[in-house]
Amino acid sequence: MSDLFLALIHHPVLDRNGRIVTSAITSLDIHDIARSSHTYGVKRAYIVHPIPEQREFAATVIDHWRFDFGRSFDGRRREALETIKIVTTLDDAISDATTVAGARPSIVHTSARTSGGTPMAELRRKMASSDSPPMMILFGTGFGLAPEVLERADIVLDAILGPGDYNHLSVRAAVSIILDRLCGR
Amino acid sequence: MSDLFLALIHHPVLDRNGRIVTSAITSLDIHDIARSSHTYGVKRAYIVHPIPEQREFAATVIDHWRFDFGRSFDGRRREALETIKIVTTLDDAISDATTVAGARPSIVHTSARTSGGTPMAELRRKMASSDSPPMMILFGTGFGLAPEVLERADIVLDAILGPGDYNHLSVRAAVSIILDRLCGR
Repeated sequence: MSDLFLALIHHPVLDRNGRIVTSAITSLDIHDIARSSHTYGVKRAYIVHPIPEQREFAATVIDHWRFDFGRSFDGRRREALETIKIVTTLDDAISDATTVAGARPSIVHTSARTSGGTPMAELRRKMASSDSPPMMILFGTGFGLAPEVLERADIVLDAILGPGDYNHLSVRAAVSIILDRLCGR
Repeated sequence: MSDLFLALIHHPVLDRNGRIVTSAITSLDIHDIARSSHTYGVKRAYIVHPIPEQREFAATVIDHWRFDFGRSFDGRRREALETIKIVTTLDDAISDATTVAGARPSIVHTSARTSGGTPMAELRRKMASSDSPPMMILFGTGFGLAPEVLERADIVLDAILGPGDYNHLSVRAAVSIILDRLCGR
């Protein structure tokens, strides 16, 4: 299977009124995404934030589990958090993933509003082929990725749908479901 | 499809040492599980807690979005939270679901440690058949459901697995993935 990466984007994302904003890092996002990423074999999960103080906050969340109380409390948390890398921009994440994988990853866009994109089963088949490039899946916090992020994408993934029309999932749930569809047994 | 319910159990659950404990309600669990439940057509998601103060806390989380700030902030949150019902015991949840569905639900046990149980694809097929009973899926907080909960189960669902052996998912992720496997398009 091709090497898989993901990036949790905090800027540029939308707020509820469709304005472009920078969202705050949530400690539970880091934990949940680390655990889901490690379960599904993601090489690195990037927390992308342009503001130094926010990156420092994310680092303290991780260090708490790496060195202090958390290490003795639950070693599996620490193990999962080793998947996380905090970076400033999407380009930094792509550059790091290129070094890790030995090839530039294809960029995969996700949104709750996409229809007519690439079905998840098709991406799963593509990733299983021996000549597949590495993949980096982008997830937007807030109310989703800003439109300009779409220009960076090589693949635009279809939205996750349940039986009805409502699909207002948390980013933590969306990450878990997409990883399961692409890499679950 | 058969009517689907879920119950988030806070007692009896295990702590990291395998002791039986009562875990605290987390507001983000309520939000994430409400959003995932509503996306996948769950009739009711029960937050099960034996301690009155904890149930009151859960009620304030929901009321905040029902009546106050949240109502105007994001109507889709409020809509999802209408799926949530706070109860004292699993029997209360079963009783309420029986009234809603018109038949007693089959109880489905989930755990990260089950092997040799019912595969998720098999339960999905079963639920799609016209003579399927309603289903209630149990999820344990903390470090999972206590062994005695297994005695209540009609169906024991296989653990979620990624490519490797690590499967330490958050309960929020486990709920999302199982709902997607059972009801996703």
